[in-house]
Amino acid sequence: MLLETIEQANDIKKIRKEDLNILAQEIRGFLIQVISVTGGHLGSNLGAVELTMALHLSLTLPEDKIIWDVGHQSYTHKILTGRKDDFQSLRQFHGLSGFPKRKESECDVFDTGHSSTSLSAGLGLVKARDITGGKHTVVSVIGDGSLTGGMAYEALNNASKLETNFIIILNDNNMSISENVGGVSKYLNNIRTASGYLDLKKGIYNVLQGTRRGDSAISRIRRAKSSFKQLVIPGMLFEDMGITYLGPVDGHDISAMVSVVNDAKRVEGPVMIHVLTQKGRGYRPAERHAARFHGTEPFDIETGLPSRPRNVANYTDIFSTVMCKLGQRDEKIVAITAAMPDGTGLKRFHNMYPERFFDVGIAEQHAVTFAAGLAAGGMKPIVAVYSSFLQRAYDQILHDVCIQDLPVVFAIDRAGLVGSDGETHQGIFDFTYLSGIPNMYICAPKNKWELSDMLKFAVGLGHPVAVRYPRGAAYAGLKEFRAPVEPGRAEWIYRESRIALLAVGSMVKTGEAVRDILKSKGFAVSLLNARFVKPLDEEAVREACGSHELIVTMEENVACGGYGEKVLDCLNRYGLENRCLNISIPDAYVEHGNVELLKREIGIDEESIAEKICGLMSGQRRMKRNEGEA
Amino acid sequence: MLLETIEQANDIKKIRKEDLNILAQEIRGFLIQVISVTGGHLGSNLGAVELTMALHLSLTLPEDKIIWDVGHQSYTHKILTGRKDDFQSLRQFHGLSGFPKRKESECDVFDTGHSSTSLSAGLGLVKARDITGGKHTVVSVIGDGSLTGGMAYEALNNASKLETNFIIILNDNNMSISENVGGVSKYLNNIRTASGYLDLKKGIYNVLQGTRRGDSAISRIRRAKSSFKQLVIPGMLFEDMGITYLGPVDGHDISAMVSVVNDAKRVEGPVMIHVLTQKGRGYRPAERHAARFHGTEPFDIETGLPSRPRNVANYTDIFSTVMCKLGQRDEKIVAITAAMPDGTGLKRFHNMYPERFFDVGIAEQHAVTFAAGLAAGGMKPIVAVYSSFLQRAYDQILHDVCIQDLPVVFAIDRAGLVGSDGETHQGIFDFTYLSGIPNMYICAPKNKWELSDMLKFAVGLGHPVAVRYPRGAAYAGLKEFRAPVEPGRAEWIYRESRIALLAVGSMVKTGEAVRDILKSKGFAVSLLNARFVKPLDEEAVREACGSHELIVTMEENVACGGYGEKVLDCLNRYGLENRCLNISIPDAYVEHGNVELLKREIGIDEESIAEKICGLMSGQRRMKRNEGEA
Repeated sequence: MLLETIEQANDIKKIRKEDLNILAQEIRGFLIQVISVTGGHLGSNLGAVELTMALHLSLTLPEDKIIWDVGHQSYTHKILTGRKDDFQSLRQFHGLSGFPKRKESECDVFDTGHSSTSLSAGLGLVKARDITGGKHTVVSVIGDGSLTGGMAYEALNNASKLETNFIIILNDNNMSISENVGGVSKYLNNIRTASGYLDLKKGIYNVLQGTRRGDSAISRIRRAKSSFKQLVIPGMLFEDMGITYLGPVDGHDISAMVSVVNDAKRVEGPVMIHVLTQKGRGYRPAERHAARFHGTEPFDIETGLPSRPRNVANYTDIFSTVMCKLGQRDEKIVAITAAMPDGTGLKRFHNMYPERFFDVGIAEQHAVTFAAGLAAGGMKPIVAVYSSFLQRAYDQILHDVCIQDLPVVFAIDRAGLVGSDGETHQGIFDFTYLSGIPNMYICAPKNKWELSDMLKFAVGLGHPVAVRYPRGAAYAGLKEFRAPVEPGRAEWIYRESRIALLAVGSMVKTGEAVRDILKSKGFAVSLLNARFVKPLDEEAVREACGSHELIVTMEENVACGGYGEKVLDCLNRYGLENRCLNISIPDAYVEHGNVELLKREIGIDEESIAEKICGLMSGQRRMKRNEGEA
Repeated sequence: MLLETIEQANDIKKIRKEDLNILAQEIRGFLIQVISVTGGHLGSNLGAVELTMALHLSLTLPEDKIIWDVGHQSYTHKILTGRKDDFQSLRQFHGLSGFPKRKESECDVFDTGHSSTSLSAGLGLVKARDITGGKHTVVSVIGDGSLTGGMAYEALNNASKLETNFIIILNDNNMSISENVGGVSKYLNNIRTASGYLDLKKGIYNVLQGTRRGDSAISRIRRAKSSFKQLVIPGMLFEDMGITYLGPVDGHDISAMVSVVNDAKRVEGPVMIHVLTQKGRGYRPAERHAARFHGTEPFDIETGLPSRPRNVANYTDIFSTVMCKLGQRDEKIVAITAAMPDGTGLKRFHNMYPERFFDVGIAEQHAVTFAAGLAAGGMKPIVAVYSSFLQRAYDQILHDVCIQDLPVVFAIDRAGLVGSDGETHQGIFDFTYLSGIPNMYICAPKNKWELSDMLKFAVGLGHPVAVRYPRGAAYAGLKEFRAPVEPGRAEWIYRESRIALLAVGSMVKTGEAVRDILKSKGFAVSLLNARFVKPLDEEAVREACGSHELIVTMEENVACGGYGEKVLDCLNRYGLENRCLNISIPDAYVEHGNVELLKREIGIDEESIAEKICGLMSGQRRMKRNEGEA
């Protein structure tokens, strides 16, 4: 195996030129084998094998710098920089991350996770190089999907001023996670199918060269700032922005790419290499089902089917079903996603009501203000989005939706710990950033029926409202508790005495388990389903204080600005002196790994919580620190 | 006066064509007169007089919809929709807003304040129109400066798919607030100075038409998707994105604009009208000093000089001076602004160290990740930004800076209440959104010397850190209290007993005044300068609890996630039972008006606070509600 000779950065340069394609196939095989066991991002990595190899052949690492946009296509880069043997622990707790991490290797120069950041980061590294007199090469690799995100454009706009080298690789597979959308995508497609442009180019050149006036036009054009070449070759849009365009290049032809990267290194200024790749390349199921193999669970290599087929509905499925019903019931319901029609469960709504469905691309800021515009025009928009991605639109929620108190519903999926994607994808900040916003309602369902009830409540509320639910299997317990959802009202599940568990969303299930443990130790325990983080049900909190010794708040969010702090504030304002234990995510980034494992690690699993409560109840009148603090 | 005949929307249509320019001059005179007294945005409004008139002539309001990007150029729109007489109260408490407000008029269809939102909102209104079968016209008016913001591009990318009419007016004055930056700006400039392009266009047409092969090329081109016209006329960049481009048009020629808007209404799809205007048009001082007259204080019309010249340094001045010193002392110091070199005080740094200064345009997301890239490359970046604008970069701070624990300094100006700009510009959320972020330090100075000390501390800290300070005169009291700034350590100003005031930043000054009032009533009062909101000085809080009956936290931020809640959390964790009063901004948007007036209105001025404390001390053992709650 050639792959075994790759033990550290730059080892690839020892491989004979004629063996490079064999190495590429070995890497592909390795990726398919590993990911079929661990799960992970398959399609994007299979597409970027040769591209990554070409970069490693042309550059010298770690002196030269590569920034991987979104980061989930960096597996080959990890293999080529000595991390092949760590792949058995890919995306597992304390194992190899699925994204570039500076703490993992000095060949990872910038951590990425969310889309469209690589050009800004790359420009920063370029400027730092120039100021300190460095001579190394800086390369940002960005997908065509990431190019729909506004900040990539902000960076392109700034790159244009650059007078030193900066290489942008546009890894164009005509896909983000699902199919790409928008004007730029169409534009790239035009280049891809090049005939129109290329014919044109040839045609005009011929015409011009055949005439005297043509010759003078050419020389005049050569003198012009925006050269004729820019006017007729593909990439004009980028050239117009002051960025030299090279391409398109076949992204599976290693030597072609090495030579274009070498050319690009000589350009004094920003240069974009347009590379055409195929997502899922070399593995038939991944080529065919791009969305499914974007981020995949473990699968059977032979069939491409999941190793552990899912037999329980998850919250996304519930959302999907409810949306179809809501869409049928009310023609003002419209749905918006930022490049995640599959991930958010909106695909069925799309199929049923195409004219009321909008996939805006990776563009959360636009998604939210667009929704505000729809609401201002009388529609009832639902923005379906993952918790961590909504962070991108904080200002738009605060300004465009909430100042005007517009009835936009945020269906926030993947809220709480998400597991193997790790730090950049944990949805543990949404209570914080949303509850500081005036006019906003925030709720979280305890189980699958409550998600359905809350969504129906939300579209009828007439104010901005966030319904936040976790990744994974929808809880199907507590079916008998289905009091109507009312704004700012909590729901008592069990009413006893001594200890009151006040739990939010997914933590209601945990609360049940904690209660069982405590009951088995002889404690009387009540359980409140908080339902709303904002507005807080102060009456329920006061009631809890009246009849219980210890109040325990439980949430899958950081402490700051969360439910627990709201309860403390309520206690303080009413002069209630109950002891209170706040269970929340510690003030630290939570890495990748199995969710149950992570919960134990940070002390928000049922055993840890029960233990803490028992400690408090037995003896020590006052605790020194709760677990909201690391 | 023609102006007197304009009493409501569409009245302008009664003015004779030949009198329109007279009306324009009357409007200009009115704007100059009013703003010279009230202060406000002068330059942008003088530039948009004819453009606004043309829109009102071509459209029918409120049926047709106009969305004003950033909003501060909507004064003529307000005049033409019956609000002329309200201008005496412009930007004053309960008076006319300086921005479009739906609650002010049905002719204001979407509230704006921050940049680059109008295209997204406009698209939302267009889709709502199409779904409900409406036939009205939707127009978004966006400046060339706003076009540097990424979300405008996200919207353009989505607009390209549109098959119904949507008019985008590009109000191009070659300026945002200061001079514009970046590739798009350069591109627009090329169009503006058109000769290159227009010569080219003429040249190629002539050549092509003169030959047989030329004729066939033209017909082939006509059939091509990307037509030849697009290839050689200005606006190609937009045409490439699928947006029909019309222009450039003289933005001070009313009839030319009316006819191009009428043309645009017939386009089935998105159409951009490129309008060239002059900022400050018709008032010489504003034409010459665009940045100063962007947003101006009251001024003398004759001379253009401020009516009340400023004789005290404000925090921005202090920042400006310190930055120059820091830049001299350490060559790794770099400074970044998003289109606010003047507003943030970085102009002097720019003059002294041009190669270490970066104005990225209205592009806060890029600014932050660019800073992260600079830090990853070994620099010490300082991002100078207004509090409310930094909301745009929440995800970038959380991910690109803080996950990697990169030493980026955020110099956050205009934090707390800002006054006459109102709701969209109040900097009252930064403690909330920043303190939920792991690895972040947040501090706020009590006076001008402490700002200087904190900035020096910040650049040496080696972690992400935010230094937040308010708009306006820098406090010059308490000079004698200048203990070294240490991470997470507060500073005792007065140590007495009974009541402990724990004040953050600007509230230390208020705290002094509150203390004076309380002292005069016979109370012993301590005052703590919190310095850090994160990490909290728990030792100081515990010390306060040990020796005082009542703890009062004071901050210019909403309660959620702020300093007060952190103190409550600390009290709870340590089992401290002191009464605590949290003074903060209520959970509601705060409108425009004089800052002192606003503080009284929301109960965070010295008298209101002292009164609340006295109420608590005299009698009622427990308060029912504090003022953190509306």
